Amino acid sequence: MNYNIAVIEGDGIGPEIVQASIRVMEAVGVRFGHRFSFQKVLMGGCAYDATGNPLPKETVDTCLASDSVLLGAVGGPKWDTLPGHLRPEAALLGIRKALGLYANLRPAQLFSSLASACPLRADIAEKGIDLIIVRELTGGIYFGERGRRQTKNGEEAYDTEAYSVKEIERIARVAFDLARKRKKSVISIDKANVLESSRLWRETVHATAKEYPDVAVSDMLVDNAAMQLVRNPSQFDVVVTSNMFGDILSDEASMLTGSIGLLSSASLGDGTRGLYEPIHGSAPDIAGKGIANPIATILSGALMLRLSLGLEQEAFAIENAVNSVLAKGLRTADIARTGEDTLTCSQMTDAVIAC
Amino acid sequence: MNYNIAVIEGDGIGPEIVQASIRVMEAVGVRFGHRFSFQKVLMGGCAYDATGNPLPKETVDTCLASDSVLLGAVGGPKWDTLPGHLRPEAALLGIRKALGLYANLRPAQLFSSLASACPLRADIAEKGIDLIIVRELTGGIYFGERGRRQTKNGEEAYDTEAYSVKEIERIARVAFDLARKRKKSVISIDKANVLESSRLWRETVHATAKEYPDVAVSDMLVDNAAMQLVRNPSQFDVVVTSNMFGDILSDEASMLTGSIGLLSSASLGDGTRGLYEPIHGSAPDIAGKGIANPIATILSGALMLRLSLGLEQEAFAIENAVNSVLAKGLRTADIARTGEDTLTCSQMTDAVIAC
Ligand SMILES: CC(C)[C@H](C(=O)O)[C@@H](O)C(=O)O
Ligand SMILES: CC(C)[C@H](C(=O)O)[C@@H](O)C(=O)O
Repeated sequence: MNYNIAVIEGDGIGPEIVQASIRVMEAVGVRFGHRFSFQKVLMGGCAYDATGNPLPKETVDTCLASDSVLLGAVGGPKWDTLPGHLRPEAALLGIRKALGLYANLRPAQLFSSLASACPLRADIAEKGIDLIIVRELTGGIYFGERGRRQTKNGEEAYDTEAYSVKEIERIARVAFDLARKRKKSVISIDKANVLESSRLWRETVHATAKEYPDVAVSDMLVDNAAMQLVRNPSQFDVVVTSNMFGDILSDEASMLTGSIGLLSSASLGDGTRGLYEPIHGSAPDIAGKGIANPIATILSGALMLRLSLGLEQEAFAIENAVNSVLAKGLRTADIARTGEDTLTCSQMTDAVIAC
Repeated sequence: MNYNIAVIEGDGIGPEIVQASIRVMEAVGVRFGHRFSFQKVLMGGCAYDATGNPLPKETVDTCLASDSVLLGAVGGPKWDTLPGHLRPEAALLGIRKALGLYANLRPAQLFSSLASACPLRADIAEKGIDLIIVRELTGGIYFGERGRRQTKNGEEAYDTEAYSVKEIERIARVAFDLARKRKKSVISIDKANVLESSRLWRETVHATAKEYPDVAVSDMLVDNAAMQLVRNPSQFDVVVTSNMFGDILSDEASMLTGSIGLLSSASLGDGTRGLYEPIHGSAPDIAGKGIANPIATILSGALMLRLSLGLEQEAFAIENAVNSVLAKGLRTADIARTGEDTLTCSQMTDAVIAC
């Protein structure tokens, strides 16, 4: 088979880590007899520099015409003072919306070979962390009406958190479907004791839950969730929440695993096309040095093979290779302990391909 | 001197822990020659049950006429299905607004005698946690316009995050003033890469910072802050943030200390009157059993003596007593390790008074 993959390298370490993931996918293609055509497109700060627009129309068109999209990372201090709509972050929000990617799957898991990197006490870490946060990605306050206005109290700025029943239903279904493949339980997180949008969220999640009588559903307030993640992350399996709460809690959860250099994410819509990216950022401080950890982006490629292209065996082969490399003690600088030898980005990629 | 303290016992364990704090303040009064007159008023679920209103006007009036307010905790499953404006949480938001308490000070610190309760790895915990989150408390999305409406996508619910320059300035000043008494540095947390209210927040914090050339200020995005708190909480000293971000991050930070049964908080406005309460909830599951940990409420009383009544020595005496009691290994059930003897709420209170 031939697959068309749109590739957004982005900024900072983006090009290095994307290159690593492409090399791994190509090796898998050779082994399993697939052809991947990678088409690079500009997005983020580099796109702004080249075209004045962080998300050129051509990029959106190429992504829409592709089977799936691989993304490195966008952003950096260089573009932080631009007006909101010209920043790399706006492109990220824009591509999610343009591709209809309303469901962000953010797995956080403890890699046993890296358990010592977990910032939690051993007796808490021992219980394991293996959760997925299903974050709503094209609604809520990141997309609501915003602006500035004069009031009797002087200048004020505002943003609007808004959710429709339809938006909540479809993200709830993603969570319930996922739960059926896992432990058949979903925790929905909101702030229903204060926010009206959370109250509609809670009602709608429970109404949708009736279609899934085999899946257990419970609610948790976002402030409590921020605590429970620290106290006992093993209590979570599938979590569903709004765009903003998901942003905050999924970052907290990934740091709890101690391995943000290893964690990937998938953004999905109604079809099979998705956008796959590492959860870490563009790390401008180490860009171009060849020392970035490519594993999260390599695993993002694996996730793409599984979820968008239906290549389960191939995805598994990559994940397996990564696990063996880690089990052998191979480390990039970010995950090495003091005194341990470190591999460069391309050495780590070679090691994964050799497995 | 004679001080008038309004006392809101609230729901669940509220009455027990408030009683403990009152006893300690009375003992301090005897030792230092002050008189505290405590006037109990109804708020929360118990107020709703008695009057149909979770925040009776009389309660607000009594608080306004007092030198300061001590609160136990409100809420419980019994009132969770009431409409939003009748819930105990609405009373909490209402009293903050009515008393003009726009600054919530939430200290999170590791008690050395309880270091083993810290959920973090020893090498992270060893660096210590001693931070204060200054949370804006009467603005933002918890107070913005909200409702439901029909759109072309069907029913939708919305909430509005809004901040005026004035609101941001005054909370920033609280943080900068506090920083002057501590390490002269403030981290301001927002989501300025997406939200307009966060961009105004950031601009205004930096404009206000010009009045405090001796205090260093830096910004952090909320998703990153949720990670950094786990990775290295010792990097934080004074943190200032919005109502919602403060709600989430302060709960995360308190859980990181492993001792939410010990942490108190102060809500302040422009005058000296404040509202002091433990950060934990009403714990309906253990209410009435006499086993609640009174320390957070006792320390809330100490905070009131210091911040509202200017009784520094007296506050210090209470904090000292609590520290000795903990150092002696005295424990209530929530902070005891398996096998350790536990004290009841009133035994713990006796022990603090005896110190
Ligand atoms: C860069 C920013 C807009 C983005 C978000 O908050 O959605 C990022 O934090 C993420 O989590 O993907
Ligand atoms: C009960 C709720 C309204 C309240 C809040 O979020 O303000 C509580 O969580 C708190 O932090 O004091």
